Amino acid sequence: MAEHIPTDPAALAAATAGAMWARDQTAQALGMRLVKIDAGCATLAMTIRSDMVNGHHICHGGMIFTLADTAFAYACNSYNLNTVASAAQIDFLAPAREGETLEAEATERSAGGRTGVYDVTVRTSDGRMIALFRGKSARISGEVIAGLKEA
Amino acid sequence: MAEHIPTDPAALAAATAGAMWARDQTAQALGMRLVKIDAGCATLAMTIRSDMVNGHHICHGGMIFTLADTAFAYACNSYNLNTVASAAQIDFLAPAREGETLEAEATERSAGGRTGVYDVTVRTSDGRMIALFRGKSARISGEVIAGLKEA
Amino acid sequence: MAEHIPTDPAALAAATAGAMWARDQTAQALGMRLVKIDAGCATLAMTIRSDMVNGHHICHGGMIFTLADTAFAYACNSYNLNTVASAAQIDFLAPAREGETLEAEATERSAGGRTGVYDVTVRTSDGRMIALFRGKSARISGEVIAGLKEA
Amino acid sequence: MAEHIPTDPAALAAATAGAMWARDQTAQALGMRLVKIDAGCATLAMTIRSDMVNGHHICHGGMIFTLADTAFAYACNSYNLNTVASAAQIDFLAPAREGETLEAEATERSAGGRTGVYDVTVRTSDGRMIALFRGKSARISGEVIAGLKEA
Repeated sequence: MAEHIPTDPAALAAATAGAMWARDQTAQALGMRLVKIDAGCATLAMTIRSDMVNGHHICHGGMIFTLADTAFAYACNSYNLNTVASAAQIDFLAPAREGETLEAEATERSAGGRTGVYDVTVRTSDGRMIALFRGKSARISGEVIAGLKEA
Repeated sequence: MAEHIPTDPAALAAATAGAMWARDQTAQALGMRLVKIDAGCATLAMTIRSDMVNGHHICHGGMIFTLADTAFAYACNSYNLNTVASAAQIDFLAPAREGETLEAEATERSAGGRTGVYDVTVRTSDGRMIALFRGKSARISGEVIAGLKEA
Repeated sequence: MAEHIPTDPAALAAATAGAMWARDQTAQALGMRLVKIDAGCATLAMTIRSDMVNGHHICHGGMIFTLADTAFAYACNSYNLNTVASAAQIDFLAPAREGETLEAEATERSAGGRTGVYDVTVRTSDGRMIALFRGKSARISGEVIAGLKEA
Repeated sequence: MAEHIPTDPAALAAATAGAMWARDQTAQALGMRLVKIDAGCATLAMTIRSDMVNGHHICHGGMIFTLADTAFAYACNSYNLNTVASAAQIDFLAPAREGETLEAEATERSAGGRTGVYDVTVRTSDGRMIALFRGKSARISGEVIAGLKEA
């Protein structure tokens, strides 16, 4: 049975995110929430749990990165074309603590041909800037929704 | 009661890692193992679980980063001086799959004054190179072992 | 004789840029022009000369980086506090050719304590995006205008 | 007339470097010297001239980057397959001054398919480490020696 793939960019982004989310074990295991999704951008939230702190009693940098990287993934896959991260860079600006909620907002800076650059800003819910992330995407073959159906 | 702090660099690195590990909830929750620790270097391993894959059915880049970042943290804190990551950069070279074991080997490229640069190579147990990570460290006040005792 | 240091942020940025420019041999040798300067931001332009191309007949990546890095320097020093680059990252998006004029626009993403993060976008005069640069700044001791006077 | 292209990797690297050098206006204008070339690696030297200092009286970060980026270019093109930089990252570790000679040594960390990662270490001639650079390469169509002949 043929499936309906939306043609409206925002609807396509939402449908793609839905298909990804159902299989995204990491995002689910870390308790992330999809706050906003549109063509080329995505915002995700995550509350820092006790199993996300490091040996210095602050949120593990890897957890901050994972949230940012996930927002980046939803943004760069929002056109329903399979896209992976080829590289990423993060600046850690301030520590975050257990119980705080982080929000990662990904926006597209450049997208042309098969590669793209996305910026992600990670803030606490009271607006403290925690990290700045920049990711480079590379499109691979296949479509997100169809590919996940087949898998 | 005064505590014994080792003066031998390798013993100090091991004692510091032990103190960090006891409080490192993230490393424990992700099932990491400390494979090797010495002054300025550390190797950690992690087996990719079903809750570490992403919407493309491959190991989430954030999980690969978190392993590398943790190896970096143990390497740059190995002198028992409190040190945090100020920035990091990662190149994703090949996908890794559920059930594979990743090993992240961190080595010191530069350490002088209060900042350092560490390189981490992430490989599968059969030697496939998965990612190259470079982290920049910044020393903050306090000592690791004493600080964690007080906390 | 006491010198007048402006208190208005935009005037201070302009005075600092003027002091730096007089000694900035590299910017002058490469024919850069200061297009805009304000607190935390700067725009510089450079026309690609025949001695700025590489072995592939396109503008050398180092020349694109140098323009972006210079815009970053004027932006992060605009408060008249001596500041240097501790790290930078650049994504090359499209080639640029001899005779084209590049414009690099630096804006502040984060500035707190002694470190800052600045984003620079490099475009051709017809709006093609050539590169995205992100620099990390570190404040050192001294002031720009006074320091350069003493030197 | 058919031209002889060496099959020995070191000879091919040398022939490729020779073809690139003849057209590399930037490297020549900055007085760089090719110190060593082999398959996947290259070392270049440059003496810091008065037109390479910045507004703080130290070697401009862009000039250090340009030297490192050029060593990277000769290393990643050494197989005679047209290759460009897609991204680069640099950590500035210590200042360098006018009159000092910098040496940039590029080595291959990863090369597979069409992308590669190269590390470049920049040192003064007395061994002080000035910067660590990491570049990502992307192969494009064509060969270096043949392509430059046609141009």
